[in-house]
Amino acid sequence: MHAVEKIKICGEHCALDQPGMEEARNRLPGITKEILKTIGKEDSPDHVGFSKIPSQEALNEIVELVETLLYPGYYGEQEIDDSNLEFYIGNQVSKLFRVLSSQITKCLLHECSNPIEKCCDCEHGGKLKALEFMKKIPGLRLMLGEDVKAHYEGDPASTSPEEIIFCYPGLRAISIFRVAHELLLLGVPILPRMLTEFAHSATGVDIHPGATIGKSFFIDHATGVVIGETTVIGDRVKIYQGVTLGALSMPRDERGRLVRGTKRHPTIEDDVVIYANATILGGETVIGKGSVIGGNVWLTHSVPPGTKLIMDIPNQKFVQKSEKKK
Amino acid sequence: MHAVEKIKICGEHCALDQPGMEEARNRLPGITKEILKTIGKEDSPDHVGFSKIPSQEALNEIVELVETLLYPGYYGEQEIDDSNLEFYIGNQVSKLFRVLSSQITKCLLHECSNPIEKCCDCEHGGKLKALEFMKKIPGLRLMLGEDVKAHYEGDPASTSPEEIIFCYPGLRAISIFRVAHELLLLGVPILPRMLTEFAHSATGVDIHPGATIGKSFFIDHATGVVIGETTVIGDRVKIYQGVTLGALSMPRDERGRLVRGTKRHPTIEDDVVIYANATILGGETVIGKGSVIGGNVWLTHSVPPGTKLIMDIPNQKFVQKSEKKK
Amino acid sequence: MHAVEKIKICGEHCALDQPGMEEARNRLPGITKEILKTIGKEDSPDHVGFSKIPSQEALNEIVELVETLLYPGYYGEQEIDDSNLEFYIGNQVSKLFRVLSSQITKCLLHECSNPIEKCCDCEHGGKLKALEFMKKIPGLRLMLGEDVKAHYEGDPASTSPEEIIFCYPGLRAISIFRVAHELLLLGVPILPRMLTEFAHSATGVDIHPGATIGKSFFIDHATGVVIGETTVIGDRVKIYQGVTLGALSMPRDERGRLVRGTKRHPTIEDDVVIYANATILGGETVIGKGSVIGGNVWLTHSVPPGTKLIMDIPNQKFVQKSEKKK
Repeated sequence: MHAVEKIKICGEHCALDQPGMEEARNRLPGITKEILKTIGKEDSPDHVGFSKIPSQEALNEIVELVETLLYPGYYGEQEIDDSNLEFYIGNQVSKLFRVLSSQITKCLLHECSNPIEKCCDCEHGGKLKALEFMKKIPGLRLMLGEDVKAHYEGDPASTSPEEIIFCYPGLRAISIFRVAHELLLLGVPILPRMLTEFAHSATGVDIHPGATIGKSFFIDHATGVVIGETTVIGDRVKIYQGVTLGALSMPRDERGRLVRGTKRHPTIEDDVVIYANATILGGETVIGKGSVIGGNVWLTHSVPPGTKLIMDIPNQKFVQKSEKKK
Repeated sequence: MHAVEKIKICGEHCALDQPGMEEARNRLPGITKEILKTIGKEDSPDHVGFSKIPSQEALNEIVELVETLLYPGYYGEQEIDDSNLEFYIGNQVSKLFRVLSSQITKCLLHECSNPIEKCCDCEHGGKLKALEFMKKIPGLRLMLGEDVKAHYEGDPASTSPEEIIFCYPGLRAISIFRVAHELLLLGVPILPRMLTEFAHSATGVDIHPGATIGKSFFIDHATGVVIGETTVIGDRVKIYQGVTLGALSMPRDERGRLVRGTKRHPTIEDDVVIYANATILGGETVIGKGSVIGGNVWLTHSVPPGTKLIMDIPNQKFVQKSEKKK
Repeated sequence: MHAVEKIKICGEHCALDQPGMEEARNRLPGITKEILKTIGKEDSPDHVGFSKIPSQEALNEIVELVETLLYPGYYGEQEIDDSNLEFYIGNQVSKLFRVLSSQITKCLLHECSNPIEKCCDCEHGGKLKALEFMKKIPGLRLMLGEDVKAHYEGDPASTSPEEIIFCYPGLRAISIFRVAHELLLLGVPILPRMLTEFAHSATGVDIHPGATIGKSFFIDHATGVVIGETTVIGDRVKIYQGVTLGALSMPRDERGRLVRGTKRHPTIEDDVVIYANATILGGETVIGKGSVIGGNVWLTHSVPPGTKLIMDIPNQKFVQKSEKKK
């Protein structure tokens, strides 16, 4: 930085037209060469010579189009009524098919033994998987209808279903999760995780597409919620901001590598409520039906159905009581 | 997915020009029809045949324009000096009026008994409410000036007011909240909550537009803060990341429905400091003037003025002491 | 709002072409004047008559370009292979130089004694600092290669390095932090903090560019992580969502002003693991090498190397044990 200090402040009348441009012209080619030298080396990340996986732009487009079909009339610029409804839906279906099938093909090519070359199997697979997914949209709309209802009934601050759909990041995260989960079940690589990460960035809710989540799910305030890959959640469960359903420990094999694919995250049975910032960990941890887990609780063991576990401040400790349910 | 497996990888020389397009042409009309069948049913969400409520694009434009007027010269591409200041502000005022009044009209139409039809009352109401809001901009600038000062004085890592305005998500969330709160007071439906949810997505701070927040408010690090609808916050309050000011329980009426509209969230008196990830719940909980609530504390009862409530790790418990303030 | 009530709902046949436009034309000039009166006053924020600091658009462009050079072939629309690699990298280098040098110049001008006038020293400084930064890209790629590896080895849910680079917000936050940290070391004002705040908004991770962070750093789930300005983190450290490495208290000088520039945040030695939502505070707090800090722990004192500090729910208290490391 000494060079900077040697130049005096020269106001408006500097002789140099663009001070520093000469240095830039001299040094930029060398910088380019040094960066090029690091490409193709094992220790620095690059993806040169492989086909592209979905870009952020394609991802945005998929989310935008799928939301117009999951919630017709809510999203998108166009006014829809009986006169244009059929054309509108038909058009959105065809646009979603085009972008989704081409991006699924990219994801398949990425894992294909035949990468750079054009692979008809991946082309075909992309189209078929897109069609299979789109067939599920009516069923997804039913599921989301129940999620919307769970949000409306769960929050006394909500005033209308419109407000739920536009202003509840938890619902948006659940909607994108349900889409990603279907794509994962259809064997689409990479894209499902990119979709839930898109939702994570927009909403602060990190749901792995592999999680299994029942009907009428409600997430309030949303920020900081983490739901791990092998979590199983029943029906009518409510969770609040900052709740983690995570892994307790990371078993390693005899060579010290992480064991992948085991159940590492908890099971939450029907009708459970988990308040803000509670953390529940472990693949063998089961929260029994109808239990209420208080805010800030840290839990690594199972509790039977009907348990209330809250932090009792006046007595400075956690209190756990089991209640008979009628 | 069996169809995929039957196709062999055919490299570059596939006879089909676009493998899978035939299937797509055959199946897409049926998919469109199945989606159309779910529209207008009670169990799946749609908003067809109703006038649009504000779109994400309109929301972005409102936030962008209002920020150029709340913080002139900070936001926006144009360089402003004495020669163009009047024209610039006049132009921004006129642009904000146009988009804000038309979006308020959409929100009013949405709740109007006369929805699809053109309603002059909603048209007029949109313009008047936009004007009423814009009259408040000078007063909002004074409030925000005090918020900026509170941020600068509250964080030793801050180096200039510019850094506060550009790099403190807490300030951005407070700015958008103060705008949304004014619109709520003017009786604008939906839009206020959409604005604070925009801020939530951008900053991780979820402030309900109904909250009442005093002068010189400081939120540091911001992510995960939740401030509920009926919270009341005094002057010169400081809160840190992950703090929840929430509802303790959800009273239900005799038919089991949530009671809406009661005070469910706490009252925080003047000069209180609440450290990271503390949770304070309940409509009758009052944190007395000048109290300090430590990080991770979970609190559902009131504390008198001047209380210090911290978690005391060496003794494994929470410690609460009240101090006489001079 | 009384004016609204006086107008009756007139359906489609209102005599007024645009109800409310007359009022708007009458009142908008007055609103503009009231806003203009608040500009140049000390109590309301404005930045009129000063040169612009970087805009959000320029920031987006810098992040986008720098990511194409840190992870070539992962980001960006273009397919890259051996035939176009050199041209592509050369082009990205030249685009990044142009936008980065001009924005650094704006930041230097902002702190320059010679603000509005053209300052050759700032022009020159912007270009030189941009070149100095770009020289460091190969070294940054090596560092990030180790961060990617730490993420892959640390999370059993990850399936490929591609998934790490596209779907781990922690890695994105670390990447942008490492860029911002280099710019801070080169003496660039404002821009480093704007970059980490960009990352904070996108990922929920708030790392101050002044922090010192060693090799192979892993942040899982990411949302809510806060790492303060004077934090020092060793090699191979893993942290989870919601972890705060923060300041304990804010020393003030004899005039009651915050003391800036002291070490206020903790030191985390090599090979430490810190689980979700733990909070570690204070400039003198040192977490010894190889320690494991459990979730939700609140810690304001140092622990020796090899300590395990976890919350032990069955016994309702925190348990701290030190273990001899082999």
